[in-house]
Amino acid sequence: MAPTKAPDSSRRSDRSRRAILDAALALVTEVGYRRTTIEGIAARAGVGKQTIYRWWPSKAAVLMDAFLDLAGRSAEGVAAESESAGEPGEGEQAPGIPDTGDLVADLKLVLRATVDELNDPVLEAPTRALTAEGIVDAKLGAEFVHKLLDPQLALYVTRLRAAQETGDVRADVDPRIALELLIGPLMHRWLLRTLPLTHAYADEIVDYAVGGLAPRP
Amino acid sequence: MAPTKAPDSSRRSDRSRRAILDAALALVTEVGYRRTTIEGIAARAGVGKQTIYRWWPSKAAVLMDAFLDLAGRSAEGVAAESESAGEPGEGEQAPGIPDTGDLVADLKLVLRATVDELNDPVLEAPTRALTAEGIVDAKLGAEFVHKLLDPQLALYVTRLRAAQETGDVRADVDPRIALELLIGPLMHRWLLRTLPLTHAYADEIVDYAVGGLAPRP
Repeated sequence: MAPTKAPDSSRRSDRSRRAILDAALALVTEVGYRRTTIEGIAARAGVGKQTIYRWWPSKAAVLMDAFLDLAGRSAEGVAAESESAGEPGEGEQAPGIPDTGDLVADLKLVLRATVDELNDPVLEAPTRALTAEGIVDAKLGAEFVHKLLDPQLALYVTRLRAAQETGDVRADVDPRIALELLIGPLMHRWLLRTLPLTHAYADEIVDYAVGGLAPRP
Repeated sequence: MAPTKAPDSSRRSDRSRRAILDAALALVTEVGYRRTTIEGIAARAGVGKQTIYRWWPSKAAVLMDAFLDLAGRSAEGVAAESESAGEPGEGEQAPGIPDTGDLVADLKLVLRATVDELNDPVLEAPTRALTAEGIVDAKLGAEFVHKLLDPQLALYVTRLRAAQETGDVRADVDPRIALELLIGPLMHRWLLRTLPLTHAYADEIVDYAVGGLAPRP
């Protein structure tokens, strides 16, 4: 808490930024992506439109930041969970997927955490609103994938490559495709709400994907 | 072409119905689900609003029918494809998944056809528009799943049960979950446009799901 050049103005900026991000998430949850406007966000956050335009070039940019901020806070929860499960994670920047040497257990831990995240009512509505808009708006969708999804997928690639080195995954498997057998079913069930998304489901997806549907000799 | 009671009026009804369904699909593709209105559909189809309300209670109902009609026409194409691949299909109502005795080949045939369908530019925009709206609107989403998706998923359950009887799939696998390892990755890649959706990808998903990621002893 050492005094800096302009503590009041900096604190005020932080508060405004926080209010804008919260207002953006609340609005996209309530009225959807298309009907959320910079004017609406400004009114709700109690700031002027110019304050928003000083920091972000567009509505899409504010919402993407609001969502990254929310997802980041949620990822901290997952990281805390995986640390309590024995993963040291010291000095790592990204939470990562634990590597206890037991691939099935590690994947179940991460997919169960993903299930909890998808079922979290605070995350659910804005995630649905942004995903739905990305499905019809290719440009927004690409940004969403690039900024938010790809970094998560990279963690699966790393863990699956490590599993190939220990012989737990076949050497001829492409980890970038294999990971879709894990997250594709979860996202499909969540997006289309076909059936409940549970820990038991996450466990079965991991067991089926790793072991295969065909009998083992 | 035997004359019926009112051939002109019946033909006019068919033409109006067709024009309404086509207008509904065109509009949802161009302006999205929310901005598509009964008024807009009527104007584009060249009919009065009352004509639409005589047959459908709501915008959602017209669009669901338009989409079922489109998907039905597309499914006929898939059925023709699987018949030319050696499946007789005589007397069957639904196209079904072929059962040639080779599970991997049969699944690849169906997933490749799904890839073609998802990449079909005529189907793509309305499918995206309806899926996106179903993601945020739980009621519409449930109708979409019940009327359109569940009947397709049932075909996978049937084929996977047959494979359990021939010993090609483990007896302890739940076919309703196993099918999500096949369609979940395809839908995930298509919806989020992470990477190109190709026949080679469909083949690999089938190989990975059936054989598993872990080495076989």
